[in-house]
Amino acid sequence: MSFLADTTVTAAGKGRFDTHLRPGWDIGGNANGGYMLAIVARAIALHCERPDPITITAHYLNPGKVGPAEVLCETVKSGKRFATVTAQLRAGDRPLLQVLATSGDLGQVPESPEMIDGEPPQLPEPEACRPSDSEEGIAPPFLGKVDLRLHPDDSGFRRGEPSGEACIRGWFRLQETEQVSPWAMLLGLDAFPPTIFNARLPMGWAPTVELTCHIRARPAPGWLRARFTTRFVSGGFLEEDGELWDSQGRLVAQSRQLGLVPRPA
Amino acid sequence: MSFLADTTVTAAGKGRFDTHLRPGWDIGGNANGGYMLAIVARAIALHCERPDPITITAHYLNPGKVGPAEVLCETVKSGKRFATVTAQLRAGDRPLLQVLATSGDLGQVPESPEMIDGEPPQLPEPEACRPSDSEEGIAPPFLGKVDLRLHPDDSGFRRGEPSGEACIRGWFRLQETEQVSPWAMLLGLDAFPPTIFNARLPMGWAPTVELTCHIRARPAPGWLRARFTTRFVSGGFLEEDGELWDSQGRLVAQSRQLGLVPRPA
Repeated sequence: MSFLADTTVTAAGKGRFDTHLRPGWDIGGNANGGYMLAIVARAIALHCERPDPITITAHYLNPGKVGPAEVLCETVKSGKRFATVTAQLRAGDRPLLQVLATSGDLGQVPESPEMIDGEPPQLPEPEACRPSDSEEGIAPPFLGKVDLRLHPDDSGFRRGEPSGEACIRGWFRLQETEQVSPWAMLLGLDAFPPTIFNARLPMGWAPTVELTCHIRARPAPGWLRARFTTRFVSGGFLEEDGELWDSQGRLVAQSRQLGLVPRPA
Repeated sequence: MSFLADTTVTAAGKGRFDTHLRPGWDIGGNANGGYMLAIVARAIALHCERPDPITITAHYLNPGKVGPAEVLCETVKSGKRFATVTAQLRAGDRPLLQVLATSGDLGQVPESPEMIDGEPPQLPEPEACRPSDSEEGIAPPFLGKVDLRLHPDDSGFRRGEPSGEACIRGWFRLQETEQVSPWAMLLGLDAFPPTIFNARLPMGWAPTVELTCHIRARPAPGWLRARFTTRFVSGGFLEEDGELWDSQGRLVAQSRQLGLVPRPA
């Protein structure tokens, strides 16, 4: 099944949307956070009639499991250019994600000055980067659903050889010929292994407390280049900053998440 | 009046808190975004009985004016370590801020590994940095309420000599001897002139769409060092990333905001 099919939402009245967390989008049984966020973003788009998330924040409350779920949306403000919406993804009585988003239309881009202080990560061609599902690794991400290729310099953590830099770079696309939409970029921003797998810190999953994504533009067709970095691990928290660049070399999305540092075993 | 007095909230039943936007915290008549966020954070702390905002996101809906206002809070999840709360600041029927926060107790810091890839900005002593209210500038921030000192290298924009780098560094504290709390750090993260005043882009105010703050630790007494940078101005948007460091040299807060790029006149 495609990403688009697997993130379907159906209007069920009064800001409520029915959905289903589909198999295969999980890591160890828990649905990927970006996948769940994409579902919420689709419900928000329908609810406020704005096609694109511009800035969207999710607080992760409980793990999502395969099965039926619903999204409850409420528009806080509907302006000329943007609409602001709060939403919750629930499975039965269990809240999974609480979301706050401002949405708009990225097809309507105002004339505006540009300044870009950065560039896409330099990566060997996708064929020269190892698919993330090519071997047993730590928490292999949703096999067969996305096509992730890690930079060889950043994938040594799998054989117990972390690079020593809290950085993960790689390619991202969906399977087959499905084009990456802004919704799929929400997935891409949460699909890579945690940066701290490359830091020389105790390994372990770093649960996400909060993820904020800024969608800057609809991506051109083709592979996206991704870079994730962490600069500060302190007080039991860490941030992870992400960038996605499209095949035209444009920055198309940024993210920051706050995660919990795995406790020493 | 102190920051603490000017951000007072009073429980008024059922998740509702009365407050008042006080004079002096405005820029050209509109209340500072960080000031309003601090008020909301105080209501959230009372509502969920967790002292500290850990990650807090605000979407800015309408300008705030001096006068009575209220905060409506709803707890989404109350867990062992954290509580997640949605809140809205309103003045009459007019929503000003929509907020989503996860709160906890920064006095309870778990044993955890640390990794710091960065350092506080190097600044001349506060006495050698110009107070931000020492001259007429562009949108002088709330005179007499906070003590901001800009790095001399970053304050040339005031005389029409931007540094050319979208960066603002400086010192932050409250007036008199009032200690900076995590709530006041929310103010500090939105108190400095926009970074793009130092980029060679058309000048103008960059309205905030969304601001997310991560509070990593309660700051030690004394001045805070602040650094704000912007790397990407594109598609009509820009991000501004902030860091606050305390007098012990610890990173105590991070922020990212999404703003609208001023249109060319």
